[in-house]
Amino acid sequence: MRSKAYQLIEWQQPPELRDVDIREPGPGEVLIKVGGTGACRTDLNLMGLPAGVMPYALPFTLGHETAGWVEALGAGVTGLERGEPVLVYGPWGCGRCISCRQGAENHCERVSELRSHGGGVGRDGGMAHYLLVPSSRLLVPLGALDPRDAAPLTDAALTPYHAIKQALPRLVPGSTAVVIGAGGLGQMALQLLSVLSPSRVIAVDASPEKLARARELGVQDAVLSNEHAAGHLRELTHGRGAEFVMDLVGTHDTLALAAGALRPRGQLTLVGISGGVLPFHFFALPLECQVVAPYWGTLPELVEVLALAEAGRLRMTVERFPLERVAEAYQHLRDGTLKGRAVITPHG
Amino acid sequence: MRSKAYQLIEWQQPPELRDVDIREPGPGEVLIKVGGTGACRTDLNLMGLPAGVMPYALPFTLGHETAGWVEALGAGVTGLERGEPVLVYGPWGCGRCISCRQGAENHCERVSELRSHGGGVGRDGGMAHYLLVPSSRLLVPLGALDPRDAAPLTDAALTPYHAIKQALPRLVPGSTAVVIGAGGLGQMALQLLSVLSPSRVIAVDASPEKLARARELGVQDAVLSNEHAAGHLRELTHGRGAEFVMDLVGTHDTLALAAGALRPRGQLTLVGISGGVLPFHFFALPLECQVVAPYWGTLPELVEVLALAEAGRLRMTVERFPLERVAEAYQHLRDGTLKGRAVITPHG
Amino acid sequence: MRSKAYQLIEWQQPPELRDVDIREPGPGEVLIKVGGTGACRTDLNLMGLPAGVMPYALPFTLGHETAGWVEALGAGVTGLERGEPVLVYGPWGCGRCISCRQGAENHCERVSELRSHGGGVGRDGGMAHYLLVPSSRLLVPLGALDPRDAAPLTDAALTPYHAIKQALPRLVPGSTAVVIGAGGLGQMALQLLSVLSPSRVIAVDASPEKLARARELGVQDAVLSNEHAAGHLRELTHGRGAEFVMDLVGTHDTLALAAGALRPRGQLTLVGISGGVLPFHFFALPLECQVVAPYWGTLPELVEVLALAEAGRLRMTVERFPLERVAEAYQHLRDGTLKGRAVITPHG
Amino acid sequence: MRSKAYQLIEWQQPPELRDVDIREPGPGEVLIKVGGTGACRTDLNLMGLPAGVMPYALPFTLGHETAGWVEALGAGVTGLERGEPVLVYGPWGCGRCISCRQGAENHCERVSELRSHGGGVGRDGGMAHYLLVPSSRLLVPLGALDPRDAAPLTDAALTPYHAIKQALPRLVPGSTAVVIGAGGLGQMALQLLSVLSPSRVIAVDASPEKLARARELGVQDAVLSNEHAAGHLRELTHGRGAEFVMDLVGTHDTLALAAGALRPRGQLTLVGISGGVLPFHFFALPLECQVVAPYWGTLPELVEVLALAEAGRLRMTVERFPLERVAEAYQHLRDGTLKGRAVITPHG
Repeated sequence: MRSKAYQLIEWQQPPELRDVDIREPGPGEVLIKVGGTGACRTDLNLMGLPAGVMPYALPFTLGHETAGWVEALGAGVTGLERGEPVLVYGPWGCGRCISCRQGAENHCERVSELRSHGGGVGRDGGMAHYLLVPSSRLLVPLGALDPRDAAPLTDAALTPYHAIKQALPRLVPGSTAVVIGAGGLGQMALQLLSVLSPSRVIAVDASPEKLARARELGVQDAVLSNEHAAGHLRELTHGRGAEFVMDLVGTHDTLALAAGALRPRGQLTLVGISGGVLPFHFFALPLECQVVAPYWGTLPELVEVLALAEAGRLRMTVERFPLERVAEAYQHLRDGTLKGRAVITPHG
Repeated sequence: MRSKAYQLIEWQQPPELRDVDIREPGPGEVLIKVGGTGACRTDLNLMGLPAGVMPYALPFTLGHETAGWVEALGAGVTGLERGEPVLVYGPWGCGRCISCRQGAENHCERVSELRSHGGGVGRDGGMAHYLLVPSSRLLVPLGALDPRDAAPLTDAALTPYHAIKQALPRLVPGSTAVVIGAGGLGQMALQLLSVLSPSRVIAVDASPEKLARARELGVQDAVLSNEHAAGHLRELTHGRGAEFVMDLVGTHDTLALAAGALRPRGQLTLVGISGGVLPFHFFALPLECQVVAPYWGTLPELVEVLALAEAGRLRMTVERFPLERVAEAYQHLRDGTLKGRAVITPHG
Repeated sequence: MRSKAYQLIEWQQPPELRDVDIREPGPGEVLIKVGGTGACRTDLNLMGLPAGVMPYALPFTLGHETAGWVEALGAGVTGLERGEPVLVYGPWGCGRCISCRQGAENHCERVSELRSHGGGVGRDGGMAHYLLVPSSRLLVPLGALDPRDAAPLTDAALTPYHAIKQALPRLVPGSTAVVIGAGGLGQMALQLLSVLSPSRVIAVDASPEKLARARELGVQDAVLSNEHAAGHLRELTHGRGAEFVMDLVGTHDTLALAAGALRPRGQLTLVGISGGVLPFHFFALPLECQVVAPYWGTLPELVEVLALAEAGRLRMTVERFPLERVAEAYQHLRDGTLKGRAVITPHG
Repeated sequence: MRSKAYQLIEWQQPPELRDVDIREPGPGEVLIKVGGTGACRTDLNLMGLPAGVMPYALPFTLGHETAGWVEALGAGVTGLERGEPVLVYGPWGCGRCISCRQGAENHCERVSELRSHGGGVGRDGGMAHYLLVPSSRLLVPLGALDPRDAAPLTDAALTPYHAIKQALPRLVPGSTAVVIGAGGLGQMALQLLSVLSPSRVIAVDASPEKLARARELGVQDAVLSNEHAAGHLRELTHGRGAEFVMDLVGTHDTLALAAGALRPRGQLTLVGISGGVLPFHFFALPLECQVVAPYWGTLPELVEVLALAEAGRLRMTVERFPLERVAEAYQHLRDGTLKGRAVITPHG
């Protein structure tokens, strides 16, 4: 099968849109006609890495946030029909370890042997007309949603969902949840917190526009990220601090802000990767606070995220780009000139 | 201190409004000037019991759902001020067993020694001008809410909250929660489920008026409780059944309806007491369903309920009655002619 | 592949040992050379059912508790080698629903469509020289254990493990767990409780021999199941009752004994299927006790059971029978003349 | 009441044994005749602090790990009898916040207002003939155990118990728990892990003697803390890492060792306070590891610890010292020449 594919060919060089051959699906595999693939900040990070940091073999096609239609089934695959719309679960594990058998391939125990994290991150991903998925276990039937709109569910929604789900037992009535960074993932996080918990939700961002957008999404409290932010958060929580702070930025400053905004027994969850460090010691945080940096999400969680989207409880702005304009989409992402998630739609 | 008090004097006889003496608070005790006390269906049940069923000594003042103002503090009580509005946590335990020490006096391990369940249920309760509370540990500062409106939080809201809280881990996106009985507690349950979970919530009731009220409270699906109800529920859940069914009625029929509406691994929670029985055996319910009948709630849960009320997320209609008209209030309750919760307000 | 197979051919007729053809594994399938298959009381129940109760198509080979060696791999199967010893996870679901994707095929949502529960329960099972397993996802590498000894892990150990695992949060220091029925599963349950929890463990059985065996396994308290049992249990728990009671018998009498032995907030878990019924209502059990009847176990739980066996923390007596003597093994099981689990070992 | 008391009078000066007056218990208070009080490393740290670090007013009597007998009851105290042996729960909170009401006074929300953490840490503690406890809610009936042996339960056992309890859901069969530091608390931690979980338990210490002691307590794997420790731990876990690592030392080196010994999704729990820092960032630990530094324990946990001790499942070596030799006991502690916990026994 001939396909255009946007591939990373050399580290620290711009990816290229090339003609590639995509083979027929073997036993257990499924070929997907790509509906949409999100362009993610992680891709920008990847492109910029020097050789040797990631264990991936080059070239590979980018795009780890994909939805589409079943195009062809390998031998032995049952329960899927040609033309059926599906989400592609992004983390591709070994399929055999105990994590993979529970649908938590983001925690595959053989990830170092695999030398990849999934399609678009070490293996050929969705920025192509067709995507060969190694097993039907990685597909989730999409129902009535359009794959071109739904693609971001697999990362931009799943990643904050996974992070928030771990914090839910803390988010009782009267509690406060703070989201630092109100961009794409942050807007998802803010909506998820409102739907999943009775907590008061506070958005923090350096951009007044993003805070305005957060307010449109129903967030009542928005805090500008400047030298007054810590005091402002303290005030909004009546001096008590927040049960949950999610840092989607991840600089030294945001981590320090996050740590200072916590209540004893709170949880600091780091999602953003910007090189920040939090020096952890006995007195670094209020008493008994937990610190964790979760990674992506599980397949059962993706099914739950999909249920929220089907129920109309997650709003995401998507800007569609044809495959030919993929480089332009990344440029917009780099420049911060996107209105929403850029989704590449190879078939229009 | 002289007070009028509405007391149960003899089993199966109408209670009487009498003049009583209420003594000064001893060490650790607190005297409350009653703001409001809810009239509860449990009281009607109590009045109708023959002697010997409950271990309570007569007479005692009714009223187990009370809020008011601190009137006087016994020796050694700190942290409360005269005039401060408070909720009275209803279940009064021994204060020393491990349940009481965690604020779960509804699970006091010495309840059989105490021969009472709380003020208004075996000990003098809130249907009086003044209420003597045996320990300051049973009081929750009420903040800005009016005790006359807030009294029902301590039972009508706390009881369903306690029941729902145990089910929350099941109530993931895509799940369904069914509430059978959309009266006072049911309306609380429906609101709580919407605030606390992303579940689809379905109300079931035999009264079209109550279903209409449920819809006003934001419930999307309302099912009339008749011979089609089981099929209707099955249809609404696409044949899968509900993760959580709460039976606030508790007849044979509602229990059978509840059991049939469940999904495998679901939870059936019985709150209503109408004498119904569910014959439990291996094949009585879908695979691995749990059955439980929770009782009232804990003090930490009451604090969480209060936080929801303070945030304006619980609506409850209250009809106020002066203490002189308490018998009339119960008659309305018995006749089903109340618009909301009847709250006795001894001080106007 | 020619194989002898012990098949249920007609309902309520004795199964027969017949020659069958077992086909080569197709894509994703794996052929197992059977090491051992346990003979289970469930099989006796099955044989005795009239037509129409179970949705299974006849004939099928019995044996749902199997371990063996990989004999041949279907196309696309990776990560297994010929000759490798494996456990066969017993419940075979659709593999695609959300339960199956988490390794909980005992909760497959398409079980009614499948018209079977697994190999040996509706589909060809392990009482044969060879067993065709429909997917490699159902196999667990066995490590150094002998498949002929390990087969009972997949049901006789997994079923009580699954039941106990749900109760663990209750089993804090100072708590009590009661096991009614100290036969095969009961002995597993008693050992599992000792390994997994700090609870005091009490065995209840009508047979002094089985109680003696329980004591050999380290259980300190053994209660003869007679008219004094309820009082004896009450006394052993100082009048408080037990946090967890597991009924592996399941008659009216044992269920009543179980209900009476509970502490408020306790859990009654029904595993034995003997037709008993517990009439559930608000006052049927101590306050807030939960009732549940769990079913088999999940694959991740099987991996945990295997870890216990590998660590030498589960003792199980196995009596081996060649395939030719399978009818005799069942007769011993029926007569209660086995010393341990009967395991059929077709290859010696 | 005249009593000798070992008091911290000036920061960075040796405490002194002085004559003091201890007043009669007021309403709600209880006077304890001290049976035993443990000498803890925390006391040594306290003595060495410069003025201004801790908010405590001087002088106060040391001793935060105390058990004794009820000597006199203040007005309104019920349920305790003179002469009854009790544990004194160590963290003394406000008694009114939501944490205190759940028995978690170690998480009192008014701790900064109180300017103390409990008896012996800011308020008069147990290194005296008599101890005035501010509320009966802080006492736990001790049953048949001798207060002079039981005193260390309130800190040396409670602190690791609290830390381990949070990790139990991870400690499934097949998992590994590592304890760095096999001194007093470490020996408790090792025993608790064996009693509470099926995990493989590994002790790490720089002292071969302490590792030998760990082996006597039933620990199978003991790792000498040197430059080979990381490799040794990796090898013992077959390259996978441990689900739980508890650092009871808390230097830079032990924290780095702990972080390196973890498995993805593991938990690093810091208990020891030696000034070490772990730089936390996205790649600092294996994927999704949690980091937390718990503090002391709750009263319900103390009741559970007591149940273990009563069941004979916790062994602790105690060296008794009369009150006159308290300075000597601390000197032994400082010199590392104690065989077990030093307990001061003012009444012999």
